[in-house]
Amino acid sequence: MRKHIFNAGPCKLSDRTLENTSKAIVELENSGQSILEVSHRSKDFQAVMDDAVALFKEVLDIPENYTILFLGGGASMQFCMIPYNFMKKKAFYLNTGTWSNKAIKEAKMWGEVVEVSSKDKGFTYIPKDLNVPSDVDYVHITTNNTISGTEILEDYNFDAPLIADMSSDILSRPVDVSKYAMIYGGAQKNMGPAGVTFVIIRNDMLEKVADRQIPTMLKYATHMSKGSMFNTPPCVNIFACRETLAWVKEMGGLDAMNKLADDRATLLYNAIDDSKMFKGTVAKEDRSRMNIIFVMEEQYKDLEAEFISFAGTKNCIGIKGHRDVGGFRASTYNASTMADVETLVAAMKEFEANHA
Amino acid sequence: MRKHIFNAGPCKLSDRTLENTSKAIVELENSGQSILEVSHRSKDFQAVMDDAVALFKEVLDIPENYTILFLGGGASMQFCMIPYNFMKKKAFYLNTGTWSNKAIKEAKMWGEVVEVSSKDKGFTYIPKDLNVPSDVDYVHITTNNTISGTEILEDYNFDAPLIADMSSDILSRPVDVSKYAMIYGGAQKNMGPAGVTFVIIRNDMLEKVADRQIPTMLKYATHMSKGSMFNTPPCVNIFACRETLAWVKEMGGLDAMNKLADDRATLLYNAIDDSKMFKGTVAKEDRSRMNIIFVMEEQYKDLEAEFISFAGTKNCIGIKGHRDVGGFRASTYNASTMADVETLVAAMKEFEANHA
Repeated sequence: MRKHIFNAGPCKLSDRTLENTSKAIVELENSGQSILEVSHRSKDFQAVMDDAVALFKEVLDIPENYTILFLGGGASMQFCMIPYNFMKKKAFYLNTGTWSNKAIKEAKMWGEVVEVSSKDKGFTYIPKDLNVPSDVDYVHITTNNTISGTEILEDYNFDAPLIADMSSDILSRPVDVSKYAMIYGGAQKNMGPAGVTFVIIRNDMLEKVADRQIPTMLKYATHMSKGSMFNTPPCVNIFACRETLAWVKEMGGLDAMNKLADDRATLLYNAIDDSKMFKGTVAKEDRSRMNIIFVMEEQYKDLEAEFISFAGTKNCIGIKGHRDVGGFRASTYNASTMADVETLVAAMKEFEANHA
Repeated sequence: MRKHIFNAGPCKLSDRTLENTSKAIVELENSGQSILEVSHRSKDFQAVMDDAVALFKEVLDIPENYTILFLGGGASMQFCMIPYNFMKKKAFYLNTGTWSNKAIKEAKMWGEVVEVSSKDKGFTYIPKDLNVPSDVDYVHITTNNTISGTEILEDYNFDAPLIADMSSDILSRPVDVSKYAMIYGGAQKNMGPAGVTFVIIRNDMLEKVADRQIPTMLKYATHMSKGSMFNTPPCVNIFACRETLAWVKEMGGLDAMNKLADDRATLLYNAIDDSKMFKGTVAKEDRSRMNIIFVMEEQYKDLEAEFISFAGTKNCIGIKGHRDVGGFRASTYNASTMADVETLVAAMKEFEANHA
């Protein structure tokens, strides 16, 4: 039977995504071929790609002067592509944990990184008052932090181009895309399955880097000029993104996703806050709606493994905390339902009643 | 109905691959989750990855001192990773067409390329007597050339490390892996679907490049030390490779694939050679068994588009030639059956009889 999936990513996807991708692997829309077999240069696949791009533009309300790419390599590849393409001398990175750190490490190969960090408190909050220097080539942020469990829910205003890793909260709320020079992420949360990376890039970003020699595959210009098909794209993964985007639209778009994210997170955070056994670890105003992190109070610490097993008997899976943080992490991405969260909350209450 | 698929890649895959991948998208082996949802850090997915690696080692008889990687980005990303990781000053590239050319273009960013080419005759043959200089860091070859239709069917012996792009003929014959320092390719021909890249690398290759600063994702060491899971891998694509490898083993392994490749190619090349309407374009001794390229004799040139339509009425698809070559290209990869080729040959004979 289908579990209540709280994986941090890859993660729960919509039934529509699973059903239609499964069918397309048998046969892509009366083409006599599987989506695994169809040529990426065929009309059949071009229609899938065009549709994915059009749905992304519509759902996220992306302005005309941006290009959408679906690439391989993961967000980790973007960590080096961004400075390779855009850093002349200096960039500002907001360091909110593991993923920011990885991005910063790559950026240092190309220049100076000015960094504001929440490391002093174990990345459990989002730094405010950033004081971005006026001469940076760009500002980089990670809007949602899957490991520390924080999230930036506003669209920042800076003079420098703003680049955001939205791997883990894209499509969970309306975003003012015009405030960003680039938004990117691995698909394997709200966008679709692992194996494809989305990039939304403002077309004028290309002009900033015309003179550096960059390997062909690492140049944004390569992929922008070829509609993500300079080389063979990850076809089935893009198909599954198309289905996920169509599902988001069907569900009512980003306003609906935003409300659902609020409802899920409120239910679970309230249960944590009301509990005498469980407690949160993150500054309340910066809590992530996508990755809800909690631990047991000191006197119950020994019961953490037992609770994970108990939740498993209620078909709740994927709640073990990341090794850097411990405790529990319930990831509640777009396809998580209130029923999933209600089941977990009931398990928490039952377990607490049994052991308190 | 299922077509006779002659796509150049992505291409026809085995029924087993399609059926089991389709099922795993509904549910991965009683895990209560789809292969699109399962965590790459879970036992369920680790078993898929381990199995894919073990089957690849078994089927291709890969020695112990090699590491197998499944990465994103495509063979095109390898074109820059290879010189970035292995070129100190100079490398030898055998230029057999479009794909070699792309690899050479990237290599020139890191040093001198010594090149032997078959460009003088439009890449319709494989150069012999290569005279590789003794001081090159490595030799790079493209064993099968999907656009020009040539193939190298022997394992070369050089003093320098031999690196082979086997994107389009891996698993079509037994290979003496010990003669190669590295074999790589996009999966989307004989290995599985688009979206994953295989790399077979001799472990001592790492020691050659210890001192260069390389972006984390472009370093082979990164992926080798993490079992292809430094970042989230393309999970469903790797699953489909596992199924394809299991199918190759089930069919009798590479001896069986080799015989089938011979049988298919012989049938089709004989039909071309016997025809007064169709003719081959490639030196007979260097003809590819994977991409069979032919054109119409001069007096029939006007009928090329009509033949493509006619073949379509017999459910043969994907035979339009590459725009650089024209005419026809029937790609007959591992999953192509004799029935597929017989249907195409019958269509050629019927068309010729109708028009001669």
